[in-house]
Amino acid sequence: MSGTLYGLGLGPGDPELITLKAHRILQRVTVIAWPAPDTGPSFARSIAAPHLTDGQIEVPIVVPMRTERFPARDVYDKASTEIAAHLDAGRDVAVLCEGDPFFYGSFMYVFERLAADYPTEVVPGVSSMMAAASAAGRPLAARNDVLSVVPGPLCDDELTKRFNAADALAIIKIGRHFKRLRALIAKMNLLPHAVYAERVSLGTERLMPLAEVAEETAPYFSMILIYKGGEDWIQSLPGSKT
Amino acid sequence: MSGTLYGLGLGPGDPELITLKAHRILQRVTVIAWPAPDTGPSFARSIAAPHLTDGQIEVPIVVPMRTERFPARDVYDKASTEIAAHLDAGRDVAVLCEGDPFFYGSFMYVFERLAADYPTEVVPGVSSMMAAASAAGRPLAARNDVLSVVPGPLCDDELTKRFNAADALAIIKIGRHFKRLRALIAKMNLLPHAVYAERVSLGTERLMPLAEVAEETAPYFSMILIYKGGEDWIQSLPGSKT
Repeated sequence: MSGTLYGLGLGPGDPELITLKAHRILQRVTVIAWPAPDTGPSFARSIAAPHLTDGQIEVPIVVPMRTERFPARDVYDKASTEIAAHLDAGRDVAVLCEGDPFFYGSFMYVFERLAADYPTEVVPGVSSMMAAASAAGRPLAARNDVLSVVPGPLCDDELTKRFNAADALAIIKIGRHFKRLRALIAKMNLLPHAVYAERVSLGTERLMPLAEVAEETAPYFSMILIYKGGEDWIQSLPGSKT
Repeated sequence: MSGTLYGLGLGPGDPELITLKAHRILQRVTVIAWPAPDTGPSFARSIAAPHLTDGQIEVPIVVPMRTERFPARDVYDKASTEIAAHLDAGRDVAVLCEGDPFFYGSFMYVFERLAADYPTEVVPGVSSMMAAASAAGRPLAARNDVLSVVPGPLCDDELTKRFNAADALAIIKIGRHFKRLRALIAKMNLLPHAVYAERVSLGTERLMPLAEVAEETAPYFSMILIYKGGEDWIQSLPGSKT
């Protein structure tokens, strides 16, 4: 009997925002695998840390956290081989995923290599998009609004077309595209509608009008929300200096 | 000291898919308020049921579950007055929300009436969109895909425009628009890419190729996912007859 592969959604960062189901599985599995950047700690592992039990085997999946290098084929080949060996030996393996495993997550690279050969279960999680809207204190989409999730690496022409076809936007994978994205948002007169959200639900959370962000790049775990209307409340966000 | 108003995301239906945080608050609050249709039980309350404690005060918010009648202004006025009375008396009130409170949820109607006057906290939840992708067993969006969430009541011209501007789609609020939506999806040659998902994460879950759904309407808690590519695996979904 082979073990089961779990893709465990752990939510946006606050360890209390994991589901009861993820919590149960996390405490029960023999092996946990988690993505980590080439420098620095694993965010996924830090969310799970308060819930881990002694003696669990850990499989780090060290990947460059720069969106433009995804996917790192060799890294996922090697990690999947290692995970498969545990599954073959009858050990259950949970791959820890920030947010939701199937919402722009890197779990898909393990999933596509192993799901056909092993029992697999994906446990959905709270996405950072939902957590950002909760932190901002306003519904991101309601009634008959169209909400689009748009990756920042797309070119300006593509972004303009996508922005125009939506009522509300979540722009993800910002990173080194931050400056270009903000310029485009300003050009489209959307700056008063834009909220910048970073590390939502954590003690280091930053939430402010996009117009007031001083930096020219953004960390991996950040996003921009663009609301239909809403200038007044955005200007009074806690992170605001006005 | 007034009580705190909580918007509690309870996830897609499986009571184990609520967060540890929602679970803690649910067990601690004196008052729970929940939406219910004019006929039949409250779905939100059924998700919370295994986690409730004895003696909690309950405030039903009975609203017509037909999307075209939202919002029912008088219903929310009355419910908010009742909730405000509990908050004024120092009692914490949790409004139970299916999925995530700020993702097309009806919690916004209570929120907009009370959040300015009372301490308010929104606890994000697992949305049914994420749960549907997990159940379908494929990432809904990855890499630089644009994902759009599109409400079914929009007219065909609007829908066509929005569909064309996205790589992946989640169509929500289907209900009585089901037949028209399926015809439009077929006309756009998207039928082989479309998954129908109903009551995901529950024992009564249905998941199948949209092409194989026999009914001409869909219940409130259903959605259509449209994937870029993917015909082969969609045809082999468990709900499929082929």
